[in-house]
Amino acid sequence: MNTKKINLNKKFNKISDYWSPKVIAEMNDYQFKLAKVKDEFIWHKHDNTDETFIVINGTLTIEFKTETVMLGPGEMIVVPKGVEHKPRADQECNIMLIEPRGVTNTGDSESEMTAENDVWV
Amino acid sequence: MNTKKINLNKKFNKISDYWSPKVIAEMNDYQFKLAKVKDEFIWHKHDNTDETFIVINGTLTIEFKTETVMLGPGEMIVVPKGVEHKPRADQECNIMLIEPRGVTNTGDSESEMTAENDVWV
Repeated sequence: MNTKKINLNKKFNKISDYWSPKVIAEMNDYQFKLAKVKDEFIWHKHDNTDETFIVINGTLTIEFKTETVMLGPGEMIVVPKGVEHKPRADQECNIMLIEPRGVTNTGDSESEMTAENDVWV
Repeated sequence: MNTKKINLNKKFNKISDYWSPKVIAEMNDYQFKLAKVKDEFIWHKHDNTDETFIVINGTLTIEFKTETVMLGPGEMIVVPKGVEHKPRADQECNIMLIEPRGVTNTGDSESEMTAENDVWV
């Protein structure tokens, strides 16, 4: 039985690279991932799943084709499946991602920003 | 396309009753719920699903049969399916729950603390 608590800030302290989500917990077939982000990510979408962003520290901007949403600490958004989005952060920002196991960070847009999947911290 | 951001504290301000999770967002067939909690909940388990607790404000204590875990702001735990647990909070505490749509707060232990399900805030 794994009932260990997880401290988000302690986990963030172990992350040094940007845009490379690290798994911290699993719930059924879903994963909780933390990422430090800064500057621009790429346009992409996830055709088979919604994807949740929760901002822990800093400000995350998510561009959609028709609008731009800025999220501060304690704010979240669920990006629906199939919806193109491009996250960016002018300053370093700490985010939590929640999505099914196996989802790649760049979705349908493989690039040099595609991170190795299922890396735990 | 629903790409509206959600501010957790603004949602908590709309909640007045304890131990009555309110849905704030859905991701695929999972729900994000917020709850204000204070004093003791009841022993229960969820036989078919893991359940995630994230503490937003305050301190949440979760008793398991073999240990007790205290969670502060920015800390989380995934309670595995089938594991009996009893949450409590000596002071008012704000938590986020993440679990599949349809999960009842008291799991296998229907009681007067069983809250109406699928109520949005």
